[in-house]
Amino acid sequence: MKAPKKVWDDRAIYVTEAGGEDTIEIRLASGRSAKVESSIEHLPLGLQACTAHVGVAQDPQVLDFSVVRLPRPATAAAVYTRNLCVSPAIDFDRENTRRGLIQLVCVISKNANVFTPTGRDDVESVARALSQEFEVDGAQIFLSCTGVIGRSLPMPAILGNVPGRARDLAGDQMDAVSRAIMTTDKRPKCASVRIGDVVIGGYAKGAGMIEPNMATMLVYLFTNAIVDKPELDRALKAAVDRTFNALSVDSDTSTSDSVLLLATGDHALGRDELDAFELGLTAVCLKLARAVAREAEGATKLLEVTVRLATSAADAHHVAKKIVNSPLIKTAVHGADPNWGRVVMAIGKPSPGSPLMTIDPAHVTIRILGQLLYDRGRELGADLRALSLAMKAATSVEIEVDIGAPYHAATVWGCDLSNEYVEENAHYTT
Amino acid sequence: MKAPKKVWDDRAIYVTEAGGEDTIEIRLASGRSAKVESSIEHLPLGLQACTAHVGVAQDPQVLDFSVVRLPRPATAAAVYTRNLCVSPAIDFDRENTRRGLIQLVCVISKNANVFTPTGRDDVESVARALSQEFEVDGAQIFLSCTGVIGRSLPMPAILGNVPGRARDLAGDQMDAVSRAIMTTDKRPKCASVRIGDVVIGGYAKGAGMIEPNMATMLVYLFTNAIVDKPELDRALKAAVDRTFNALSVDSDTSTSDSVLLLATGDHALGRDELDAFELGLTAVCLKLARAVAREAEGATKLLEVTVRLATSAADAHHVAKKIVNSPLIKTAVHGADPNWGRVVMAIGKPSPGSPLMTIDPAHVTIRILGQLLYDRGRELGADLRALSLAMKAATSVEIEVDIGAPYHAATVWGCDLSNEYVEENAHYTT
Repeated sequence: MKAPKKVWDDRAIYVTEAGGEDTIEIRLASGRSAKVESSIEHLPLGLQACTAHVGVAQDPQVLDFSVVRLPRPATAAAVYTRNLCVSPAIDFDRENTRRGLIQLVCVISKNANVFTPTGRDDVESVARALSQEFEVDGAQIFLSCTGVIGRSLPMPAILGNVPGRARDLAGDQMDAVSRAIMTTDKRPKCASVRIGDVVIGGYAKGAGMIEPNMATMLVYLFTNAIVDKPELDRALKAAVDRTFNALSVDSDTSTSDSVLLLATGDHALGRDELDAFELGLTAVCLKLARAVAREAEGATKLLEVTVRLATSAADAHHVAKKIVNSPLIKTAVHGADPNWGRVVMAIGKPSPGSPLMTIDPAHVTIRILGQLLYDRGRELGADLRALSLAMKAATSVEIEVDIGAPYHAATVWGCDLSNEYVEENAHYTT
Repeated sequence: MKAPKKVWDDRAIYVTEAGGEDTIEIRLASGRSAKVESSIEHLPLGLQACTAHVGVAQDPQVLDFSVVRLPRPATAAAVYTRNLCVSPAIDFDRENTRRGLIQLVCVISKNANVFTPTGRDDVESVARALSQEFEVDGAQIFLSCTGVIGRSLPMPAILGNVPGRARDLAGDQMDAVSRAIMTTDKRPKCASVRIGDVVIGGYAKGAGMIEPNMATMLVYLFTNAIVDKPELDRALKAAVDRTFNALSVDSDTSTSDSVLLLATGDHALGRDELDAFELGLTAVCLKLARAVAREAEGATKLLEVTVRLATSAADAHHVAKKIVNSPLIKTAVHGADPNWGRVVMAIGKPSPGSPLMTIDPAHVTIRILGQLLYDRGRELGADLRALSLAMKAATSVEIEVDIGAPYHAATVWGCDLSNEYVEENAHYTT
């Protein structure tokens, strides 16, 4: 059991990692603390949900449809993939979340509805059917599609199966929803926290790729707090920047990634609760982001990279991403090889948008699993064999690099690159 | 046997690929044609070379040292890695090639001499020993180091072994040199061409990674042409931009990559020979670049990606690189899966430095192995099973993407991602 570690200097969020499980804890200045649960138990009141097979998956046993209905329209904030080839569902959602209220969340899985001839029309048709069946305004629907790119949705099957679903709505179906949106995920990824009277809970899917193009990461978060839209947008963006935007399983970006946060507005935040709300939101996102990396296709180890340097947090993030995405470093971590020379290669690697900087070996330090290996100009005589054994046993491997004066820091997460990743993504038979 | 294919619209260079071997041919406007040989037979006169073990490799049977001595100083052009953490040998070479004359090329293998406390001093010491032994000006030496990052060169062994080597110099040792610089390469990579009285020949190493950090690509080219330095610089840069700079085995960039071109100046180029020289240089570089991709660590297939679009060749190159570097596409090619949806993901993938563009499905076409799969808004009913069988049998897979009006084109090369790549880069035991 490792000691609790503060993830960022300025946020009171602590991670303890043991046996491939994270315990994430918030410690407030007031002395109050709260633990993020790996379940969805802390949720706003009144959410109802249902799941179904509507004919997208070939196997009728497979759930390919889920709905969460809120008791009334909730203030919505969302962030989306920056891929240039997005699903028309993303365009639809963007318009609705820009307006600011969402009452119904629907996920269709096994089909991304991207690059199909009638994609946008199909989204509108599904939304109309949902609006009628679940009695919500079509402009307050959030619809996600995730799965194969380039195949048309089976519209007759979907439109034939939506009517009648509302009678399945129930208050105890959120666990089922977190499973129904899974594609290649090994298990559902849920997280929730209660800080005083504020609750924040949600679930995520993503990063498995047994089926083609199933890379989509979808995250749904719910809170009971009363937060106005500008503030909710800001809080979500801040939390996502530090967590999901610091995540890279294989450097490929899905066409449908979305993170949605809905605030039902049951609880007015006290003066000192806004900070608790933001901390809780970031902690829940951190829990889910680390779970996505840990359980990514073929992953056997979580890889955490922290870079500290003088110029800016954005530069630190850029360099950390070069390290976490390097196939040579990912394979070295997989093989438990404390090969710090590959870290040197990665920090110097030219890439579009690289910070303008020079790297002087005399100002660089490199640590793996906390062990100092390279210290400002010279390799230390570390026991690499012992370190390799420690890496082999570890379920998470941390790489830390300081370049010059460590005024700014960034931490990013990824995973190792294994034969299983290659197997699962190569051996799809058309 | 496929039909000869013109690689670029504006250069009369044709590739015929059969059974994992490229035949590259130049066709001049004059009607003359020339074939690029897979050997180093066409070289300027008077080159002498030797190889040795000088104590860098642990096994005394392994050659870790080679020298090529030119009869007199030759006009030199070179391009180098843009990695920010370079070998001090690169700094040394950069100064010498900027001056413009090189008479001796030395390669030390198994050690990159990067991030070591006395790296630059060691380079100077080796250069002094070479200068004395081989009777060349120290400022006219080109020294490359390739191998592990972060370990000091065994200087006493090297300096003890250089004296006496000059007596091994002989005119028939170039094949031995092309083998002595190998690290994890499966076989030496040589290419040469004769066009009338102009000869261009050279050899390359690189892209295997059985040993850690052996990714360095080193290329040495020799011509008998009289070309002044500005013109030689320009011709090399143009040839490298289209060939080695369009090559990506695993997106990682070595700390020591170098391409050197030496012109011995025995043959004055006739009025119509400058174009032939430039074509020949590009064709030799193409042959070597394709060989590096084909024989990269774990590679079973050459991957060739061509993108055509409206804005600029640089934009086409950027998008093509996103495709050739995508782990999901590399694994799909490995598994012979004509998964064009992953190409959609890759062309839309956000990346720093991405061209500012929107992608309208109605203006996109995607071909794999020449077969049109997606045509401006709709998937075609191609026989994917037959295409998968063709991909399985192929030793090279071409992906072509048109986005909008195809005014500008770029072609890049890479390879598939296999279990062998993971194995060879993970299982280094410290």
